[in-house]
Amino acid sequence: MGEVGRRVAEAADLVTVALDELLPRAEGPESRLTEAMRYAALGPGKRLRPYFVLETGRMFGLEERPLLRAACALECVHAYSLIHDDLPSMDNDDLRHGRPTVHRAYDEATAVLAGDALQAAAFEILAHADTHPDGAVRAELVWRLAHAAGARGMCGGQMIDLLGVRDDLGAVARMQRMKTGALIACAFELPLAMAHSGEGERQALMAFAQDLGLAYQIIDDLLDAEGDPEVMGKRAGKDAAMGKANYVTLLGAQAARERLDLLIEQTKSHLDPFGEQADFLRASADFVLKRRN
Amino acid sequence: MGEVGRRVAEAADLVTVALDELLPRAEGPESRLTEAMRYAALGPGKRLRPYFVLETGRMFGLEERPLLRAACALECVHAYSLIHDDLPSMDNDDLRHGRPTVHRAYDEATAVLAGDALQAAAFEILAHADTHPDGAVRAELVWRLAHAAGARGMCGGQMIDLLGVRDDLGAVARMQRMKTGALIACAFELPLAMAHSGEGERQALMAFAQDLGLAYQIIDDLLDAEGDPEVMGKRAGKDAAMGKANYVTLLGAQAARERLDLLIEQTKSHLDPFGEQADFLRASADFVLKRRN
Repeated sequence: MGEVGRRVAEAADLVTVALDELLPRAEGPESRLTEAMRYAALGPGKRLRPYFVLETGRMFGLEERPLLRAACALECVHAYSLIHDDLPSMDNDDLRHGRPTVHRAYDEATAVLAGDALQAAAFEILAHADTHPDGAVRAELVWRLAHAAGARGMCGGQMIDLLGVRDDLGAVARMQRMKTGALIACAFELPLAMAHSGEGERQALMAFAQDLGLAYQIIDDLLDAEGDPEVMGKRAGKDAAMGKANYVTLLGAQAARERLDLLIEQTKSHLDPFGEQADFLRASADFVLKRRN
Repeated sequence: MGEVGRRVAEAADLVTVALDELLPRAEGPESRLTEAMRYAALGPGKRLRPYFVLETGRMFGLEERPLLRAACALECVHAYSLIHDDLPSMDNDDLRHGRPTVHRAYDEATAVLAGDALQAAAFEILAHADTHPDGAVRAELVWRLAHAAGARGMCGGQMIDLLGVRDDLGAVARMQRMKTGALIACAFELPLAMAHSGEGERQALMAFAQDLGLAYQIIDDLLDAEGDPEVMGKRAGKDAAMGKANYVTLLGAQAARERLDLLIEQTKSHLDPFGEQADFLRASADFVLKRRN
């Protein structure tokens, strides 16, 4: 699968093992809750956000254990958001990565609580002294993740998506930047904060993250329009069926694909200031954007 | 209403004003979300947890602005928990403090998201440099609130409550310590951390918080069994109707009332090490435990 594919798979394994250690055991009378948290967070998943935390942190020469904690916290927020997005009152999905969604495998109340507790777990992990020796850095990690996850980030984007963006490419882009872009950016913001990086490095990686997120979303929309539900492990054609606008419904598949090709080159160009150091990040962008599910 | 009543009312006003400043404005295409957050967090409520944050912090000589931020963060978590607890898949309540619950005033998806975003807002507020100059203290505040809110605290307690504790006073007590006790304890843990207090002070206030929480719960159960829904602004007799055990169903009202009287004295005795400094906390316990709704 190539060098990057191997690193992505290795990172996914590392993160899964670390999450297994960090999440509460399925013990006590509340074990139904902790089981559901584990079902969601330890199940299949690409672990791309944690992968980028690790790869970016390595570029800055950071140690692996603290990076893994930050990666796990980010994955906890991602996992909680999927549980809640899948709820009957939200996107009403029965399948996620080919398995029953949490409210299907357990029940709706357990799914709401498992999401809530995973969000709390994320901040508990970040705030712990093992994540970084400098308390101010730990507080910054918390602030960045909380801001990205909240009303001006992921939750706000999901609200806009639920209300339905119908006809405006700018509005779709804004929604996407909030709903998924903010958490993708966090995969770079967390190691940036841990490395005490400068503003130049931050701006370069934020531009990289933004274009990467946009490219990823266009692929998502192309897959939603044309993908194979068997391969994706979830329903296809959802946006069109619900009358929602996305890059493909607004631009058409051909123009979306052309924009995607340009965007992939542009994404990598943001890494120029890092030189060879960023070779793995560059290769990762190519790898990630070749996704077929 | 007496000195304590006046201080409780003043604290509630201060916290409401501070929350209004700290919560995101109802602007942008996501304004339905921020409106719902504000509806829940700024609406009527006793604001007892924030009150205890302020009163305990004053006892330690802490400044008001940082204390208010900690108080607001705690209230955000409390408000989010009420939104989610009221959901149809949870306790299915239509009224809260005499007003429609968030999923009634808005819709279920908005209620889930408003709770999620309020939880994120709590940690965003705590982690910000304005809450405390020492980053390690900010990280500790985050850790304590996240731990209290998560699987081994509030969310775990709600899970156990949903599964239904049926017949064991020890199990009911454990559930209550997790579901409501952990967040009440936080009202003291946050100012303790901000004041760099010693272990002795911490243990005394934790014992106070635990007995206060237990006494508060027994009153809750007495009100549920005998209270007037008009005064309470919510349904009564819920636990018995659902076959759930609580202090009153297990002990009977008379024995529960006797236990409560003993507990109120015991609660205040934990404050002995603080001498006169704790007079307001003592009086506050009396005030709070005279509640009729």
